[in-house]
Amino acid sequence: MAASAIGVVCGLIGTMFHFGVHEVTAFRGTHPWVLYLLPLAGFVIVSFYKLTETDGLGTDDIIDAVHEGKRLPILLLPAIFFGTVLTHLCGGSAGREGAALQMGGTIGQCMGRTFRLDDRDLRVATLAGMAAFFSALFGTPLAATVFAIMVISIGVLYHVALYPSLLAALVAYGVSVRLGVEPTRFTVAVPDQSVGMFVRVAALGVLCALVSILFCKLMHGAGHLMKRIKNPWLRVICGGFAVIALTWIFGTDYNGAGMDIVTRAIEQETVAVPWAFLLKLVFTAVTLAAGFKGGEVVPSFFVGATFGCAVSPLLGLPVGFGAAVGLAAVFCGVTNCPVASTLLAVELFGAEGMLYFALACCLSYMLSGYQGLYSSQTILYSKL
Amino acid sequence: MAASAIGVVCGLIGTMFHFGVHEVTAFRGTHPWVLYLLPLAGFVIVSFYKLTETDGLGTDDIIDAVHEGKRLPILLLPAIFFGTVLTHLCGGSAGREGAALQMGGTIGQCMGRTFRLDDRDLRVATLAGMAAFFSALFGTPLAATVFAIMVISIGVLYHVALYPSLLAALVAYGVSVRLGVEPTRFTVAVPDQSVGMFVRVAALGVLCALVSILFCKLMHGAGHLMKRIKNPWLRVICGGFAVIALTWIFGTDYNGAGMDIVTRAIEQETVAVPWAFLLKLVFTAVTLAAGFKGGEVVPSFFVGATFGCAVSPLLGLPVGFGAAVGLAAVFCGVTNCPVASTLLAVELFGAEGMLYFALACCLSYMLSGYQGLYSSQTILYSKL
Repeated sequence: MAASAIGVVCGLIGTMFHFGVHEVTAFRGTHPWVLYLLPLAGFVIVSFYKLTETDGLGTDDIIDAVHEGKRLPILLLPAIFFGTVLTHLCGGSAGREGAALQMGGTIGQCMGRTFRLDDRDLRVATLAGMAAFFSALFGTPLAATVFAIMVISIGVLYHVALYPSLLAALVAYGVSVRLGVEPTRFTVAVPDQSVGMFVRVAALGVLCALVSILFCKLMHGAGHLMKRIKNPWLRVICGGFAVIALTWIFGTDYNGAGMDIVTRAIEQETVAVPWAFLLKLVFTAVTLAAGFKGGEVVPSFFVGATFGCAVSPLLGLPVGFGAAVGLAAVFCGVTNCPVASTLLAVELFGAEGMLYFALACCLSYMLSGYQGLYSSQTILYSKL
Repeated sequence: MAASAIGVVCGLIGTMFHFGVHEVTAFRGTHPWVLYLLPLAGFVIVSFYKLTETDGLGTDDIIDAVHEGKRLPILLLPAIFFGTVLTHLCGGSAGREGAALQMGGTIGQCMGRTFRLDDRDLRVATLAGMAAFFSALFGTPLAATVFAIMVISIGVLYHVALYPSLLAALVAYGVSVRLGVEPTRFTVAVPDQSVGMFVRVAALGVLCALVSILFCKLMHGAGHLMKRIKNPWLRVICGGFAVIALTWIFGTDYNGAGMDIVTRAIEQETVAVPWAFLLKLVFTAVTLAAGFKGGEVVPSFFVGATFGCAVSPLLGLPVGFGAAVGLAAVFCGVTNCPVASTLLAVELFGAEGMLYFALACCLSYMLSGYQGLYSSQTILYSKL
């Protein structure tokens, strides 16, 4: 019951969020000058966070809310919503689902409190909200469910949250589809199974583990570096100018979420430059470290797909398929969720390549080290 | 390396086992009189187990081997191999993959000892062997992997075993396919997604949870009852006569593994009698409790598929699809592995119905109680 209600609310707000990001991205396409408002947008975002007393809250706090029952303020919801939309409007490089996890978790916990759930059920409600919001955005209910209940503690499966989360995710998915959100899907030709192909996919998985390590190190490193600027307003304004400068040099491909570039890498098998993945890394690290809002997952899709697209010819893999494998494997490497990543790949690309995706994700998981994107995540067992 | 070697060996022995069971089942089809040798076969099996000093060992001991590092004797391998083939030859009702898990686990552990692995890696090797053997028999590497690493402790994912197990499972799958084993696959038409259909699938999932409870209670109950006959030779001979009597009354549909009946329920949407699932339960409980060898998983497929086939018209579900959902949900209910069951359903039936399968499996998991098939399995968290 509570799970369905959470699903409906997350589905509705998720749909609004989806179209919000979609519209502002389209607006930026036709009005490129909004990029110059980025420092101003940053100023507004930081002020809004100060005003709602939510500054400093991020995805790690959602994870802590599940771990320790930490209370999430409802005002985080509008803060991250408008923060992310503004970031996307003005061309900051960020994703949507860090935001989705935060909004979903907040909705779940606040609704749980309204229903007067006890402490344990509040945590379940938080997870259900995360799964539901993720599902509404990408149209991948199963991956969203397994992701939400696995990302918290690697090695433990919160089985008790499984059914509530799945139900909320299915409901949110249904609501979002009914309201016109198209589920994210890619068409990709999967090569026939052969030993040689598995070896090549495994090699790509290993490379993706290295990219994942670089991704996480760069995100954390940029965060520490930008923290040197003590004043948050100054920090976000500097970050805004930095992104503007980067855009002058490298073009607009790396602003916003960049789902169009991901699609192009997978379906048209082209990427502008082989080092596109590095540029996206830098853009995203600067944007998020400066204090702009959004997620790290769509950037990880971007990095994985463009990287896979760039190295596939060297490995002798079909390019579009390599991009798809790269997307799944880098997502897995940074989030440490091999099962959820495999399910995500199945939902995005179909079941045909399932074994390839599973192999690449397992290797990427195993070799990507212990520093994931989320420092609140606990990894209970050694990986090797 | 070790994982690949385990994969090759499990693939080879798995293929032999597959064709062994296949051949004797065909032989029984053309020579129905072998049924009357069942008590004699039981006598031979018990004697062989006594001779190899493996009597009393079963799937629970494999689970303990992973939990506690218990040593598995290599002689268990021929014992369970011939025990299961003899049981199938003479028409005992049993599956193949309890046997598969035991053989795979034994191979994995013994090879691990040969490679002089340390204690932790020995457990991983045991898991890898289980996954590889399961994968060789059913052609479902991913489900086999997740099943092996999740069935041990519900709530914990032995991530460290993920890559070795997947590698072993893929290699074993490759070997078995190369040697002519056809992966188990069913073609089933999946209905379009709608709220009504999800509600019906959910209802079927709840019913399957009840069937799972009945399944486990009957298996454990029959075990205790038969233990009253202290002499194991006498016990197995009595069991043999009981199965013969049951076959006289109800026909030969319920002897052996019965994969043909499963296929008929899913693909031709017919089942002989609506209570076929109950009969299979009784046949299997008597067979295994008496001391014959084999697994419980194919019977759980049989029970789930025939039950789903029988109740689908009442629920307004397409019959073949209902049988597929029933198979996955009952498997999930008795093994407590929702994620592995969903992956199994995707590998057996394709990705189209993934969300339906996931929903039914989650519900069946949640409501099937704490008494699964394997009493050595630990369930770490409450389910509700």
